[in-house]
Amino acid sequence: MKSATVIGTGAIGTSIALALTRTGVSVHLNDVNSTAARTAEAMGAGSIHIPDRQVDLAILAVPPTCIATVLARAQRSGLAHAYTDVASVKARPQHELLAASADPSTYIGGHPLAGTERSGPLAGRADLFVGRPWVLTPSARTAQGVLNRALELVALCAGTPVIMEAAAHDHAVALTSHAPHLISSLMAVRLKYATEANVRVSGQGLRDVTRIAAGDPVLWGEILHANADAVADVLDAYAGDLNLAITALRDLAVADPTVRKRAANDLEELLKQGNQGRARVEHKPGTSLADLAAVSVTISDEPNSLARVFTAVGEMGINIEDIRIEHSPGQGHGLVELLVHQSSAPELSRLLSAGGWVVSQ
Amino acid sequence: MKSATVIGTGAIGTSIALALTRTGVSVHLNDVNSTAARTAEAMGAGSIHIPDRQVDLAILAVPPTCIATVLARAQRSGLAHAYTDVASVKARPQHELLAASADPSTYIGGHPLAGTERSGPLAGRADLFVGRPWVLTPSARTAQGVLNRALELVALCAGTPVIMEAAAHDHAVALTSHAPHLISSLMAVRLKYATEANVRVSGQGLRDVTRIAAGDPVLWGEILHANADAVADVLDAYAGDLNLAITALRDLAVADPTVRKRAANDLEELLKQGNQGRARVEHKPGTSLADLAAVSVTISDEPNSLARVFTAVGEMGINIEDIRIEHSPGQGHGLVELLVHQSSAPELSRLLSAGGWVVSQ
Repeated sequence: MKSATVIGTGAIGTSIALALTRTGVSVHLNDVNSTAARTAEAMGAGSIHIPDRQVDLAILAVPPTCIATVLARAQRSGLAHAYTDVASVKARPQHELLAASADPSTYIGGHPLAGTERSGPLAGRADLFVGRPWVLTPSARTAQGVLNRALELVALCAGTPVIMEAAAHDHAVALTSHAPHLISSLMAVRLKYATEANVRVSGQGLRDVTRIAAGDPVLWGEILHANADAVADVLDAYAGDLNLAITALRDLAVADPTVRKRAANDLEELLKQGNQGRARVEHKPGTSLADLAAVSVTISDEPNSLARVFTAVGEMGINIEDIRIEHSPGQGHGLVELLVHQSSAPELSRLLSAGGWVVSQ
Repeated sequence: MKSATVIGTGAIGTSIALALTRTGVSVHLNDVNSTAARTAEAMGAGSIHIPDRQVDLAILAVPPTCIATVLARAQRSGLAHAYTDVASVKARPQHELLAASADPSTYIGGHPLAGTERSGPLAGRADLFVGRPWVLTPSARTAQGVLNRALELVALCAGTPVIMEAAAHDHAVALTSHAPHLISSLMAVRLKYATEANVRVSGQGLRDVTRIAAGDPVLWGEILHANADAVADVLDAYAGDLNLAITALRDLAVADPTVRKRAANDLEELLKQGNQGRARVEHKPGTSLADLAAVSVTISDEPNSLARVFTAVGEMGINIEDIRIEHSPGQGHGLVELLVHQSSAPELSRLLSAGGWVVSQ
């Protein structure tokens, strides 16, 4: 790939442009908002000048609802040899582009599974896609050269390509991203009605469950719109379990001991199934749960206490696979949990203890 | 307080015993499982010998369902001048102790809002309660001396006392802890049926939403049992919003544009309310959202990359209030987000950039 045009210089588009520019591709930037395009240019993401010949690849980093229209227009102007997009929903744009008389042979759907809670070109980062899955959804009409161009894009951004059917992709993200987003948002809606005393007794669990509820309502409204039926299917099944749980909770108070016993069993069964489901996503791809062990270290609230822990571990040459910090600002102490390969855990505990750290494993 | 007995040397009981022993209180340990009591003793949490006179305070760190029975028995034996417990549900034990003919004047309900995902005496930590809220629920019959003894306990463990009615406490934790636990578990139940391809496209959002679903099903079954109606009330309201969301998702596909428009509005309104609710718990008590700013730093996957970031920040004398790490093991790069007081953020960005770090703010 020698040249590319990025249409839409938000966080994702700018990140792709930065990554491609860094590998020597000549990148052109295009945005209906000329300030956004100029900002991306100032960040070194490419040039806002219109290319003087057809580019190898155009990346449409525009909202899902605009893809078909933008694609058809770009194809008519002969902008690029190949086209892809980055939308988190894939089947609907594929149908819409036929209605918009776009050419399906030069288009391949794409969805890099990397994001940032911030938006706009200033949130762009050349390394946003490093090691992240990047789904490609070729249709039966996508030319092989176009698929290979998209694979080259993913490689230049250091992502991991995953080829899926558009519909299978949409069902997957309905389950793993879109339904969880609504489930988190609806829990957060309950907190709108919380008293100050309620908020005061809230902890890390609630913050984890509701973190993604902070996402942009307009963007998420569009995403849910574009994948509505698949998300509704997941939520229907979820609502079935929820009603089962509510019935069980109410039944715990009835007189009949048989009913109470069954209710307690139903609740515990749901919690156990939750354990099993959670274990499926406990650790990142490539790291098996069985390979890891946790070592907890008590840290003080001084500015350099975290640094000293990581320095100590770094000097031991042990790789930290994941960490979790329980940290109460301004309150003296916290706990950092280091997840390392099991083979390293005993030595890590021993060396940290010997170094004067308070360790529990 | 000169002497105390801890009944139940699990993670919470042992943590209290360690904290009290450290401040010079003579602590006696008691557990139906003598191995657990001896383990706590070996950790320096106190002595398994039976006290030869009435202790100042007995702390019942036993399952919620056992509190009334254990309390009545301890009172009959004249074990202590005052009694408290640590159960995460408060109204039900208070009712049960009257039925068990326990003396309500020497008892005050307690609930330290600190926990660990691990269990047993080895998970005990003297600093578990530092800076954490510790709810006390005196009844109308609790003697003032007993309340003051419990306040002393919280102070010795360096917690922050919060006095509430038992019923108000239970409604608060139903909203902020028990209902979120079930909501997270039921999302995790969906993942039981996920394909490998589904799991492969899952990300940090899903992991956050389902983290607490890893909790012990037996313990959580008991907690939900003891607070069933309050939890069911929260879930009923949640189910109402969920049905509204499902209806809106289905309506997005109907022919009538008026219905579609209303459905899109309903969805966006729910997402916006979720934003507002989430903002209520965005940061820890004592730290206002307005005071903090995020500075993001790109880190490599080398063993000492985190260490170098924290060392650099430590050397600047800037206090990190909270952190979030996006880290892909074995995949080259990650991002650490440092939350610092707004006044420190520009200098932190400048110094880190000057030190060669890739920073975005």
